[in-house]
Amino acid sequence: TDWDRWLVMGTIGTAIGILGFLIHQIIDYLIRLKWGLVEDYLQKGNFHMTWIYMLGIGLAMIILSSGLVVFFCPTGTPSGLPEVIGFLNGTSIQQIFNIRTFVGTCGSCVLAVASGLFCGPEGPMIHLGAIIGYGLSHFKPKILRIYFPSTIRFWNTADRRNFVTAGAGAAIASVFHAPVGGLLFTLEEVASSWDIKLAWQTFFCCLMAAFTTDLLSSSLSGFVYRGQFGFFKAEKRILFWVKNLLDMSVLAFVPAIFLGILGGLLGAFFVFLNIRINKLRLWFFSTIQKPSLRKSAKLLECVLIFVLTITAIVYLPYFFHCTPVRSLPASDLPSKSQNIHHLSWQICEYNCKPATLQSGSDETEYFNRTFNEAAALLAENGMKGITYLFRRGTHVEFGYCSLFMALLLYFLLSCLTAGSAVASGLVIPMLYIGALYGRIVGLVLVSIFGIQTDESSAWMDPGLFAAIGAASFFSGVSRLTISLTVIMVEITNDVQSLILIMLAVMLAKMVGDWFNMSLYSSLLKLKCIPYLDVEPIFYQNKNGLNLELFAAKDVMKLHVRVLNLKENIAFLAQILASTRHSGFPVVYKPKPDQSKVFLGTITRPELYALLENETIFEMEDTESHPPLLSYQKIRTEKLPNQQWMTAMLACYTTDPRYQQLFINLEPYINKSAVSVQAHFSLQRTYIIFRSLGLRHLTVVDSQNKVVGIITRKDLISFQLEKKLGSQKASHQLHSDDELLD
Amino acid sequence: TDWDRWLVMGTIGTAIGILGFLIHQIIDYLIRLKWGLVEDYLQKGNFHMTWIYMLGIGLAMIILSSGLVVFFCPTGTPSGLPEVIGFLNGTSIQQIFNIRTFVGTCGSCVLAVASGLFCGPEGPMIHLGAIIGYGLSHFKPKILRIYFPSTIRFWNTADRRNFVTAGAGAAIASVFHAPVGGLLFTLEEVASSWDIKLAWQTFFCCLMAAFTTDLLSSSLSGFVYRGQFGFFKAEKRILFWVKNLLDMSVLAFVPAIFLGILGGLLGAFFVFLNIRINKLRLWFFSTIQKPSLRKSAKLLECVLIFVLTITAIVYLPYFFHCTPVRSLPASDLPSKSQNIHHLSWQICEYNCKPATLQSGSDETEYFNRTFNEAAALLAENGMKGITYLFRRGTHVEFGYCSLFMALLLYFLLSCLTAGSAVASGLVIPMLYIGALYGRIVGLVLVSIFGIQTDESSAWMDPGLFAAIGAASFFSGVSRLTISLTVIMVEITNDVQSLILIMLAVMLAKMVGDWFNMSLYSSLLKLKCIPYLDVEPIFYQNKNGLNLELFAAKDVMKLHVRVLNLKENIAFLAQILASTRHSGFPVVYKPKPDQSKVFLGTITRPELYALLENETIFEMEDTESHPPLLSYQKIRTEKLPNQQWMTAMLACYTTDPRYQQLFINLEPYINKSAVSVQAHFSLQRTYIIFRSLGLRHLTVVDSQNKVVGIITRKDLISFQLEKKLGSQKASHQLHSDDELLD
Repeated sequence: TDWDRWLVMGTIGTAIGILGFLIHQIIDYLIRLKWGLVEDYLQKGNFHMTWIYMLGIGLAMIILSSGLVVFFCPTGTPSGLPEVIGFLNGTSIQQIFNIRTFVGTCGSCVLAVASGLFCGPEGPMIHLGAIIGYGLSHFKPKILRIYFPSTIRFWNTADRRNFVTAGAGAAIASVFHAPVGGLLFTLEEVASSWDIKLAWQTFFCCLMAAFTTDLLSSSLSGFVYRGQFGFFKAEKRILFWVKNLLDMSVLAFVPAIFLGILGGLLGAFFVFLNIRINKLRLWFFSTIQKPSLRKSAKLLECVLIFVLTITAIVYLPYFFHCTPVRSLPASDLPSKSQNIHHLSWQICEYNCKPATLQSGSDETEYFNRTFNEAAALLAENGMKGITYLFRRGTHVEFGYCSLFMALLLYFLLSCLTAGSAVASGLVIPMLYIGALYGRIVGLVLVSIFGIQTDESSAWMDPGLFAAIGAASFFSGVSRLTISLTVIMVEITNDVQSLILIMLAVMLAKMVGDWFNMSLYSSLLKLKCIPYLDVEPIFYQNKNGLNLELFAAKDVMKLHVRVLNLKENIAFLAQILASTRHSGFPVVYKPKPDQSKVFLGTITRPELYALLENETIFEMEDTESHPPLLSYQKIRTEKLPNQQWMTAMLACYTTDPRYQQLFINLEPYINKSAVSVQAHFSLQRTYIIFRSLGLRHLTVVDSQNKVVGIITRKDLISFQLEKKLGSQKASHQLHSDDELLD
Repeated sequence: TDWDRWLVMGTIGTAIGILGFLIHQIIDYLIRLKWGLVEDYLQKGNFHMTWIYMLGIGLAMIILSSGLVVFFCPTGTPSGLPEVIGFLNGTSIQQIFNIRTFVGTCGSCVLAVASGLFCGPEGPMIHLGAIIGYGLSHFKPKILRIYFPSTIRFWNTADRRNFVTAGAGAAIASVFHAPVGGLLFTLEEVASSWDIKLAWQTFFCCLMAAFTTDLLSSSLSGFVYRGQFGFFKAEKRILFWVKNLLDMSVLAFVPAIFLGILGGLLGAFFVFLNIRINKLRLWFFSTIQKPSLRKSAKLLECVLIFVLTITAIVYLPYFFHCTPVRSLPASDLPSKSQNIHHLSWQICEYNCKPATLQSGSDETEYFNRTFNEAAALLAENGMKGITYLFRRGTHVEFGYCSLFMALLLYFLLSCLTAGSAVASGLVIPMLYIGALYGRIVGLVLVSIFGIQTDESSAWMDPGLFAAIGAASFFSGVSRLTISLTVIMVEITNDVQSLILIMLAVMLAKMVGDWFNMSLYSSLLKLKCIPYLDVEPIFYQNKNGLNLELFAAKDVMKLHVRVLNLKENIAFLAQILASTRHSGFPVVYKPKPDQSKVFLGTITRPELYALLENETIFEMEDTESHPPLLSYQKIRTEKLPNQQWMTAMLACYTTDPRYQQLFINLEPYINKSAVSVQAHFSLQRTYIIFRSLGLRHLTVVDSQNKVVGIITRKDLISFQLEKKLGSQKASHQLHSDDELLD
């Protein structure tokens, strides 16, 4: 009976799979194009020309990328995960799911990553996935003329949220080839309400996305055909495949604990720094009055960051020595058929030419080669770098010097990049930064104890600690635990070090939470999105504020505008014009001699829709029943054109004819609107509000008369803190009458 | 601020880790003991003596095992997962969390598995984990004299559920060495209410459990010291480690889809058969009037099943030929230091002695050996068998004949065993049955296409399909998807075939759901546990019954017994004695001339607690305030001694003195009890009821007068079907007054 839902889920998954495939192919293609142009100069060791070319191509990309965000996207700022999280929490955010946002974000993200900025495509990809989820379940037949059977069924808030959730998960599944990780990511970070049926559907959607991406990528790399179609090589599917599992010793927990704590500290610092930079950025741009000038300034900032980045990438390796290739496996060496590897090898080689270019066997040639550590670490946004760092058995491949340099550079530049006016993601930078300091810790161990070869000390491998470090920093910044652990397993295929990773991740989260909120939560707050956490987190009163001691009445807004069951048109228009509330309680008299009691609620868009249809207006004492409007007509979330609306309201308010006309709201109100009594515990009020995903909660007295209303904004942590902090707990146990009189 | 909670979680995890370690060690020890006794006869090929010895030892174990359940456990039946699921859903089930149940289940499970019955220790282990979670968070200082700091804080329903959930997850984490799988298992199957904070705590608990088990097992095997303490070998940690990952072709999806559908069909059939057998069993035992006779009959049944099992294990291999050892790796061959492997090899050899016992090199000896397929498949409850079947590159190791025989035998005997009077789990049998038919499908492919050696066809490996088959059958029976996928990755360390497994699992679930409910849901129904699903599943009216079209009033019970705020003792006692309701709405008059409105609820145990304290009784018109009882004293879930209670109630009812005495309920009622209006949509009523985990929901009219009550039992699927099926939808849009008059 639910086949159409599964069908839509499958379609969403497939579409996101195709999108993920395309984005990666285009990025690969652009990167190859870019390096191809400077290949000759690089070979000749002409770094100035390399720099000039790289800068030229990169600038073109960056200007286009940033321009797309600033001038093309409707909001003019890069949007991403926080907006999606906010939407799924129940906030309505304008213009995050429209086609211009999609095109702008898509283009901006591809160009930014290809240009060489320190960022990855994951964050924007999640947003794109969410847009696809929203769009495909919401096909408007009259626009595209393609009629998706029965999607009208899904035009309601609950289903829409489900499809958006699934879309976000599928995006992760597609970029990491990690279907289960994607699913868990939505569960842990993205979705606010969640049930097992949604989980199964998301599971299916993620499966389809991962499969589609795998299938399409199986034979193409940067749009160049290599290998058989439909043949999934483990090498390619598992992003950072760790081939040799290590037997573990309990001693490995000591450095893992250290890495976990370090990850928490550095992660919290990263969040602090990024939010500070973003605040500064906001403040700075707000000082520029002229919109066009402000937009140009945003674009200029991106250009500056890019110039800094590319200069570092090209010139920094110059100060590093050449390291002999010892443990890098032969598969990374150039071979004629593999164009990409060839290139990436040339970048690693930088200024280090083979000591003697013999025509000897491959083996000899291999051992004569040297490479530049810094060049290997800095090129290609870190994707390749993570592979190098995770590799087991390469104890001495990278030295302290290059690792520290890359760590510092990446930390600062990726912190600067995240939040600038390009659509960029932080996942790859986070993994990379973590891998860098993890490797350093591993190297310290190797320096102290030497390279261990016997079975029981094999765990002392810098590659292992790079992986643990990556997980710890990711967790320190994002405070993810479960999904992160699963994603790590899916991208490394190493179940053996799972427990170490879990421990580091857990510690990083705990230590990080001690200092501040996760990056996404901080961004939600910075962007003023009223997000309701599972339970409110108080930062000022760490120990205080037990919500059980307060009641619903302590936070509710008084003086609620209520509507009558049969309401006057002029009054309605006047109330809509003079307030900005988005929901109104409707009251009625059960019997003529009784007072008015609460019956249900009606929303502003519904009222607008009703007012647009004059046919349903009636006289006060008429017995005739006007025609009913259909459900589809009034169940809308979109507000009509602003100006038109204002005109209509003004007309209704002033024209005396409408003073005599009424509208019977009864068929249209939501009679299943939840209400609580004023003495209801605030703790439970919060739980009800959040778990049912409400936007308004009417507060009534013991006889069901409306006394107040609670909205989302009344329940955000800092609002609660402000309202309740000064107030003495009103204690649960008081008589009902006291508090209302 | 929440450190004590984490501490308790950690303690629970550690305790479960130790328990998991002990259970496995004892099982290993008992199995070694058993085989050790028959070793000589086995070597001599004297199967009759082997049979007699095995039967003798086994019978002792089985009688003890079944005896523990039947005579020692308070309920007299094996309990397990369904009870835990029911408890977490909000049902209160007596005696599932007590110390006798713990000891009984623990002993019974160890003995049943060691005896050789076709079952595993996982199901009971989950129950044991839940008991530990319950117990450790609930330490009663006065009994054990160990005072756990501040656990009193956690003596409430919500926290108790959290600890039980975490305990169940930790049990899975411990037995499978799968911490993330355990966590997801609780999320998908066990817990009804769930939030991200609980997830993190469960994550930590699972981590501790897996770590403790790993650490303790690192050097012991059946209590024999082998290897270094604190050194975790991947070989041992990853239960069914798949060492060589295969590059995958898209063609592999065809057999995977087939296996998925087959898994669904066979799984649904298994559930059907098991439930039928259990019904028959229930019916049969209910015909026996005398309790002691009934108990003995239950015990006898287990004995019969065991005799059948052991006879099959010992004699069936006799009809099979010897197969040369070709692809089984040398590590399985006997070596002096490894006692267990030696034994398990001897069992595999059965009647197949090496053709020539040369004193040549190990290599030669290895290739001269032969073994008995059926013996290898049937011995040791399947644990070893799964390892054999999952192994890659062993295309011809097992033939159709032995596979089919093992499949049929396991299917029937494990179906018979599950539900008999021993504490037994189905996880290992499910994996094994699936692996058997998966291997058969793989073998068919090999028969058709031959053994493929080139890279692109390497996927045609019976070992791969055994793994996919195992997952599909598990899913077909349990309808798990997400957690199952993660568990499969954690026990095989094969991310590469993840997508195939996901697909098979998804299909098996869909196909299975077409026929019946999952095994656990069916058992919940069979055991009459009122479980509320995420949404009600209707089996008679597959398309009908849109709950949106009904209202709360359509299912509520009328004629509610309400209490006054100041209630007469005699009346209270009489109402408690004459009804069995466990919750009562409390009403009061806001003003003398108004009618009584709903204020809150009070539960039966709370009323009992109040009635026990005569000091708080007062006269009707007194102004004096009697002393207040403390929260701890009345917040109890346990009913006092039945007889004592009856006596007290009788005394209050008859003694005329109590006619004059009253009790002021106001300080003790739950004023945050949710109520809905009678016209409230049934759909939303259901959601509120389930997501807030309620037991009673008061239904009020527009003026907040009590008109009805909804309990858990009114909302179970088949009750809804019964009540609403005949009735015409009452339609949401009616006037409020109509329906109440």
